[in-house]
Amino acid sequence: MNLKLQWLKNKMLSLNLQGMIISNPTNIKYLTNIEAEGTLIITPKENIYITDGRYIEYVHSILTLFDEIIVYNVNDISKEDYENFFMFCENIGFEENYISYATYKEYIRKFKINNFVETEHIIEKQRMIKDEEELSNIIKACNITDECFKYIISYIKPGMTEKQIAKEIDEYYTERTDGISFETIVASGENSSKPHAVPSNRKIQNQDIITIDMGCKVNGYCSDMTRTIFVGEPTEEMKKVYDLVLNNQKFALDQYKEGCSTRQVTKLVENDFKLNGHDLIHSLGHGVGLEIHEPPYISYRNDAQLKENMVVTDEPGIYIPGKFGVRIEDTVQITKFGCISLTKSEKNYIII
Amino acid sequence: MNLKLQWLKNKMLSLNLQGMIISNPTNIKYLTNIEAEGTLIITPKENIYITDGRYIEYVHSILTLFDEIIVYNVNDISKEDYENFFMFCENIGFEENYISYATYKEYIRKFKINNFVETEHIIEKQRMIKDEEELSNIIKACNITDECFKYIISYIKPGMTEKQIAKEIDEYYTERTDGISFETIVASGENSSKPHAVPSNRKIQNQDIITIDMGCKVNGYCSDMTRTIFVGEPTEEMKKVYDLVLNNQKFALDQYKEGCSTRQVTKLVENDFKLNGHDLIHSLGHGVGLEIHEPPYISYRNDAQLKENMVVTDEPGIYIPGKFGVRIEDTVQITKFGCISLTKSEKNYIII
Repeated sequence: MNLKLQWLKNKMLSLNLQGMIISNPTNIKYLTNIEAEGTLIITPKENIYITDGRYIEYVHSILTLFDEIIVYNVNDISKEDYENFFMFCENIGFEENYISYATYKEYIRKFKINNFVETEHIIEKQRMIKDEEELSNIIKACNITDECFKYIISYIKPGMTEKQIAKEIDEYYTERTDGISFETIVASGENSSKPHAVPSNRKIQNQDIITIDMGCKVNGYCSDMTRTIFVGEPTEEMKKVYDLVLNNQKFALDQYKEGCSTRQVTKLVENDFKLNGHDLIHSLGHGVGLEIHEPPYISYRNDAQLKENMVVTDEPGIYIPGKFGVRIEDTVQITKFGCISLTKSEKNYIII
Repeated sequence: MNLKLQWLKNKMLSLNLQGMIISNPTNIKYLTNIEAEGTLIITPKENIYITDGRYIEYVHSILTLFDEIIVYNVNDISKEDYENFFMFCENIGFEENYISYATYKEYIRKFKINNFVETEHIIEKQRMIKDEEELSNIIKACNITDECFKYIISYIKPGMTEKQIAKEIDEYYTERTDGISFETIVASGENSSKPHAVPSNRKIQNQDIITIDMGCKVNGYCSDMTRTIFVGEPTEEMKKVYDLVLNNQKFALDQYKEGCSTRQVTKLVENDFKLNGHDLIHSLGHGVGLEIHEPPYISYRNDAQLKENMVVTDEPGIYIPGKFGVRIEDTVQITKFGCISLTKSEKNYIII
């Protein structure tokens, strides 16, 4: 059996679960490498992946004997099959955050489940700690992001639209990677005051500030980086906000290490923003892996501790509605005594 | 209040629901035009959209006074606010397919809900029937898809990769529309035997068959079309399969009209495939609107009746593993006495 499934079977044993239904597609990709629509079922007898006709051929091309997973076409499974999967099982785990209320009810009926047990993100928790292969993929994605950023600051000229710049980034990634890890943000001028701006037809002008939030995927693993750059000399107000964001971004990097409290580091950044008359309106960071946003979430609402080989972002931002915004973000690997920036692009004023 | 919200309030009245929590983002877009992360809540007193700091500014830019929706930042809502929203309400509707089991439990606790009622896709059912504005958007998306297809068959040359062709389609759409409505499929040679193929670096060769499944979005509304084309003269086997698919695709179009049973039409196509030694391994079609796949689903597992102003696809396909596949698909509007093909590209042998 593959190592990740073996880990899961051991974990289930320790939780007294005789079976489990895995619905989160990212968890299925993590455990099996399959990216399709389907459900992974761990029974006492066998591991089963249930999908439909569209994916059968693809799934067989991904799995190896080593995975020990039997593939079923959902249309070939009888009422009796469903009832047999978990026969004589007491406790069956499920992903309470990844099945709808309707599916929850359907499963209990269809599988005749005795005791359906919430598993509280057991797989997501394991996914927070990256192994060597996962780290290697993320590092590749971050390196290509640095290269793409270097290219894009030489490419941007006044008169280009935000959409055109975003498209250039997307193409750079498409040619070299599995593609973008989220919708590229290029937000210029007053658009930069929206943390979640969508690239528009606004043209880059002199004296603009431009926030670029970008990332790609390598073998399914993501990178995430934001830089805020200037077209021509920034105003004193822009500089002041930029310096405040950058100082706090660096301060947080200094705190990031095994044992760091995510709530505390966020509070410290928030306090410094408040002291300077600004708010931290989103979280300070998030885990990065198969998903662009995954646990741990670094915010004051969530008290997690950073651990070795977590990969997280550090991305404070300040947004002044109708005027401008600044966000600076790196993807970093947590170590026992600090953190390693995996994205390494320039963070001092970049003026084009 | 906007007309769609007004419809919903009347529908809720008829179902004896005093409140409703709407979680499906597409239903929220349908009712409010908002595309963000958040929840729409209909209470006896007011309509509320709950989101977070990232979207507040954007949401205010989308809503008009006419919508009568109050926007809340999730972080500003107190325990008491939650309990007040549905105070003195007996029955509160929820979307059982769109909230996780975990959220279901959280809502009951947080909103102190008396009786939480499954609403069985009431909004999705309404969305099946398109109004004039919706039809106009879908027709625009279909027209541009026809134009794009015309362009792409003049563009394809042996030696190009599937990825390169898919990218050209994507760019055509990006320049003219809101972008693709799903990941473009360009599947050549043996890759065409996978109904859900992802464009690869395989180069187009003489004697290839190429399946192209493509669509775009206009104001959020989708188009969906598939054509299977030949590079050089097709073999007799290819022609035989192509003719079988095309005849059945046309046959289904002849059946599509108000009152047509989706199960029966699928069965008829399936029977003809079986008589000729093939299987229908996916459904015959699906609704198209704000989502690329939405109800009604046209398959033998689902007995719906087609109705006037539904927009659905007709897309039979035959896939011979390791050899080749053929799929032909149009997006069509159902009328009282027939259907209107909204995609109109050539369906006879296209040989490039």
